Amino acid sequence: MTNDTLDTAHGWLTADELEVVRDQVPMVYVEAVPVRVDHLGRITKVGLLLRAQADGRVSRAVVSGRVLFGETLRDALWRHLNKDLGPDADPKLPAAAAPFTVAEYFPEAGRGAFHDPRQHAVALGYLVPCDGECAPSQESLDLAWLSPQEVVDPSIADEMSSGHGRLVRRALAFAGQLP
Amino acid sequence: MTNDTLDTAHGWLTADELEVVRDQVPMVYVEAVPVRVDHLGRITKVGLLLRAQADGRVSRAVVSGRVLFGETLRDALWRHLNKDLGPDADPKLPAAAAPFTVAEYFPEAGRGAFHDPRQHAVALGYLVPCDGECAPSQESLDLAWLSPQEVVDPSIADEMSSGHGRLVRRALAFAGQLP
Amino acid sequence: MTNDTLDTAHGWLTADELEVVRDQVPMVYVEAVPVRVDHLGRITKVGLLLRAQADGRVSRAVVSGRVLFGETLRDALWRHLNKDLGPDADPKLPAAAAPFTVAEYFPEAGRGAFHDPRQHAVALGYLVPCDGECAPSQESLDLAWLSPQEVVDPSIADEMSSGHGRLVRRALAFAGQLP
Amino acid sequence: MTNDTLDTAHGWLTADELEVVRDQVPMVYVEAVPVRVDHLGRITKVGLLLRAQADGRVSRAVVSGRVLFGETLRDALWRHLNKDLGPDADPKLPAAAAPFTVAEYFPEAGRGAFHDPRQHAVALGYLVPCDGECAPSQESLDLAWLSPQEVVDPSIADEMSSGHGRLVRRALAFAGQLP
Repeated sequence: MTNDTLDTAHGWLTADELEVVRDQVPMVYVEAVPVRVDHLGRITKVGLLLRAQADGRVSRAVVSGRVLFGETLRDALWRHLNKDLGPDADPKLPAAAAPFTVAEYFPEAGRGAFHDPRQHAVALGYLVPCDGECAPSQESLDLAWLSPQEVVDPSIADEMSSGHGRLVRRALAFAGQLP
Repeated sequence: MTNDTLDTAHGWLTADELEVVRDQVPMVYVEAVPVRVDHLGRITKVGLLLRAQADGRVSRAVVSGRVLFGETLRDALWRHLNKDLGPDADPKLPAAAAPFTVAEYFPEAGRGAFHDPRQHAVALGYLVPCDGECAPSQESLDLAWLSPQEVVDPSIADEMSSGHGRLVRRALAFAGQLP
Repeated sequence: MTNDTLDTAHGWLTADELEVVRDQVPMVYVEAVPVRVDHLGRITKVGLLLRAQADGRVSRAVVSGRVLFGETLRDALWRHLNKDLGPDADPKLPAAAAPFTVAEYFPEAGRGAFHDPRQHAVALGYLVPCDGECAPSQESLDLAWLSPQEVVDPSIADEMSSGHGRLVRRALAFAGQLP
Repeated sequence: MTNDTLDTAHGWLTADELEVVRDQVPMVYVEAVPVRVDHLGRITKVGLLLRAQADGRVSRAVVSGRVLFGETLRDALWRHLNKDLGPDADPKLPAAAAPFTVAEYFPEAGRGAFHDPRQHAVALGYLVPCDGECAPSQESLDLAWLSPQEVVDPSIADEMSSGHGRLVRRALAFAGQLP
């Protein structure tokens, strides 16, 4: 999960304040799996952001970010999709009120399916078709569109950060397209 | 539910054959609630078809039709949406494999929430945002776009055919927008 | 929404700390609509807690409470169901990872469908069949089991607190049983 | 998919009638993935029926069967669960109106994810916790309870009939427990 610097740049919480609150309550996150779909709604490609990690390794991730105080989930989704995929991505937010899955990130490694050393986060997952031109933000090295077959390949799955591979597999299963 | 004439016009089943099979097994239907959504995916309008009934009354309905032998659910949805809303409706079929609800129509009145004197039908319900120009087919008198508030008003709900009012309320609840 | 006193009694956050953090980030809540179901899984009764409000009025509510730092959603659901319905309620938590709906509570009245003057909360909603003997905790005056028909009656709906009536209608729609 | 003999034994359709109707319209099926869950609703075991195939091979399957004319989906689920798991299985049918997935079986091999040489079937998939004593019917050799890890193992997955392995993986993803 990413995008905290920009959030705090909104002036809503300083890095120190965020540090404190992160030890006190679970954080609310939204996570979006960007996809290309055909005219029948079937996923043809899954979009993955390529990022340089602190340790020099490269990792692949879906769109993910914190929900700010006072912000609706839909506004947060829109903000993070625009920031990560650019202003022309044309994301189609789903009409459903519920996410297709929920991922629970805990700071302790090995406790459950998702891990985030910084915090306890409850992340609501959405599948978001994007019709437009997608351009990765400056935080990302690249944005790659992979087929459902490719995205579940172990060589790709191994490069996914923080359980995002698991999230993508759940998204494909939800769409009836897990190979 | 409608659209049988055209289906059989495809030559796949004559009216007589359809009559027989309808007494033997449940029919598979797809039903689509057409909606306009804003950039955040929130429903702004619900589309209702206005039809003249055999008894002279006018009724309102969502898009609904039979799934043919050998046809996928997505192909059936696409076909019925195009037939009822015209070729420029630009329906965005959902990526999810599951419908948001299932409506079970029985020929006996009063047995459950949905009633179809012609048959036992299992109808899979989808919420379908339509971006484009929608033009009702010749089978319909008109296509009206109503707000979520208007569409649940008793005066409108009373004009809905075969439990379609109930289907629309379930769709609004699914979207978190039932007033 | 309720149950903060007990949460803080766990020693995880003092009332003052909770006050501060509530102004900084959205709180994570779980909300459970307790139901009785028949052998086919159909809802026969919906359980509502009766509570005395600060202003002397009585209000009806579903089970609702905060998710603590480090607590899983399932543990939080279990804890709040046990606290509100007693140790013999035998709640059957759903196998699905996703809630059936999400309710967003904002401190400003009139901003969206749900309102909580104390905080911004993101509440994940679950439908929970309870087989056992349910006994309201000391925080509640009573626990009433109402039919789907009764629970949507305006006289009952008007007594619901903080949009819980809306949550119950969404739950009934999800179950295909909204009258 | 199975259980046609017993269905027709109800006298509702002869084998010949079923043969004819199967060439005319899609059949409605229900499929249930039986699971053991812990008190928090997490899947601990998945139940698979072991069957002898016509060609002597053994195959593993979930509960699956046709919906009869006039029968509700819930009644069909109940009937097939009782037939396949015995009268003491105590299945907990989900309260949701919608299945967690839909599987479309086509008679042509290679057309989509599911294949049934006998027919075009639209199968609604449900996840069904069973608390009681499960005893495989005479049609099955055995009923095995496997952990989520075991059930997705290729050695087991290869023994699954007609895409049931795929259905089980979708069920685990829906529950947030796909390994």
